[in-house]
Amino acid sequence: MRVLLLIAAATALAGAAPAQKLMTPTDVISAAPPRAWKAIPADQLLVMDLKNGGRVVVQLAPAFTPVHVANVQALARADYWADATVYRVQDNYVAQWGNNDSEKPWPQGVTAKPPAEYWRSLTGLSITPLGSPDPYAPAAGFAEGWPLSYNSAAGWAALAHCYGTVGVGRGLDPDTGTGGELYAVIGHAPRHMDRNLAVVGRVIEGIDRLSSLPRGTEALGFYKDKAQYVPISALRLASQISPAERPAFEYLDTSSQSFADYLRIRANRNDDFYKRPAGGVDLCNVQVPVRRKTAGERG
Amino acid sequence: MRVLLLIAAATALAGAAPAQKLMTPTDVISAAPPRAWKAIPADQLLVMDLKNGGRVVVQLAPAFTPVHVANVQALARADYWADATVYRVQDNYVAQWGNNDSEKPWPQGVTAKPPAEYWRSLTGLSITPLGSPDPYAPAAGFAEGWPLSYNSAAGWAALAHCYGTVGVGRGLDPDTGTGGELYAVIGHAPRHMDRNLAVVGRVIEGIDRLSSLPRGTEALGFYKDKAQYVPISALRLASQISPAERPAFEYLDTSSQSFADYLRIRANRNDDFYKRPAGGVDLCNVQVPVRRKTAGERG
Repeated sequence: MRVLLLIAAATALAGAAPAQKLMTPTDVISAAPPRAWKAIPADQLLVMDLKNGGRVVVQLAPAFTPVHVANVQALARADYWADATVYRVQDNYVAQWGNNDSEKPWPQGVTAKPPAEYWRSLTGLSITPLGSPDPYAPAAGFAEGWPLSYNSAAGWAALAHCYGTVGVGRGLDPDTGTGGELYAVIGHAPRHMDRNLAVVGRVIEGIDRLSSLPRGTEALGFYKDKAQYVPISALRLASQISPAERPAFEYLDTSSQSFADYLRIRANRNDDFYKRPAGGVDLCNVQVPVRRKTAGERG
Repeated sequence: MRVLLLIAAATALAGAAPAQKLMTPTDVISAAPPRAWKAIPADQLLVMDLKNGGRVVVQLAPAFTPVHVANVQALARADYWADATVYRVQDNYVAQWGNNDSEKPWPQGVTAKPPAEYWRSLTGLSITPLGSPDPYAPAAGFAEGWPLSYNSAAGWAALAHCYGTVGVGRGLDPDTGTGGELYAVIGHAPRHMDRNLAVVGRVIEGIDRLSSLPRGTEALGFYKDKAQYVPISALRLASQISPAERPAFEYLDTSSQSFADYLRIRANRNDDFYKRPAGGVDLCNVQVPVRRKTAGERG
């Protein structure tokens, strides 16, 4: 602590603001004004309660995968996942849950064969560029709170598979995933999945409940015995939970100055611990800040 | 399986080799000739047995961090870690083990203040370039079986913090880590740690034993109560284990044609599942293949 104390004293003597180079990403987030935070609507939060304890909250991405997200919302409202489990946990890859390809019929309002929403048009998106090269696409950045890669010449933007990203499981053929089986990334970003699968959201709370589960020993991390399946006691939208009980979250607007500052500092860690800033950062190492809204702020 | 079978039949009729575009990374590794595999010496394998079951094997990197690796080897030989535990597990970051900063004196042969081996000279390294841009350095690639970033103009190469990378814990000041406390990356590659900490190796077997541990609830993922510490029953070099019992491994030579093929296919996944190859790949998504040597092959 001695180093920190000496620097604080020097700053006080000079009457200056704390030196910019000593700020951490956490400092920048703490300093963001209220207007830089955007509330997430309650029907865009998928809340999964595990029977053995622990809650996982997924923010949905209707701006990118509207038909798949509408399916997820319809499945939640119809209580399609009443007997759902986490049945696959593959190390450094994904945890997957749902009804494990049961023959249960799709409820009303579900599009059984949704279009392949693997990317969308750039039109209408206000992108904050990452400012570092991306190995998987001509460019990468953020829009509406989401990390994505994009190709300005071709006009597409695709949500990136980062730690916590939630997508729709499918078979060998594309366009075979409806939304009943979902996976979350629990390891290094498998970005080769971008533009090959439909991303419907990302885990914003409780990813550790999935990432710390025992790994399945069958091929692709499926659990061998049904006794290993992790039961899910409730899988529903926050809007299905009573207002007093439902969780509420907000994310840092990726078009805000605060996010730009945060992005710059993530690429140039230069504080008491990090002495050699890289001058660049990987898309998936810039996690868009999310926080719980306090009860008083809830809409 | 129908798609696969139809393609296999067509190939047989034409008398051709299986179409290149359908090969997966696993296919390429399976086809690598014996000469493409390099044995790892027994004193470059750190073997950690957890008391509750499970083994974690770390390949050491003496070509990059010779003094730190010599420290780790000396600590293992002196049984310095007789009472060691895993005492920190931070989600999407690291698991850390050792004696938790006890005041135990360093055994003979340990350099208490090793030099800051955070990078090394490019001289003497034969690098296979990644072929994709890297957000953290002018270039990235592989040498002697290790993923690294490098700067040809400045002449340095630094081991990359990827999933499974093992480094030396240190305090706020650089050059404060001796080797008694080690961490392994269990999440998305924290590449901002490159050139800021000493990398001594990588987990080549059993990383799931660390990544599936419960997360610590204190700041930085430290366990709150000592009762949560995960006891380590043995932490030693493979060379300290009897030849009949010791594990043996080999890695795919990163200068081999097989590795070049593997690298190309990792960057261009185009098989029965992946329809849209990215044309690029992240350094840490190209895990250097490692396999157990069979008993008959052991030296």
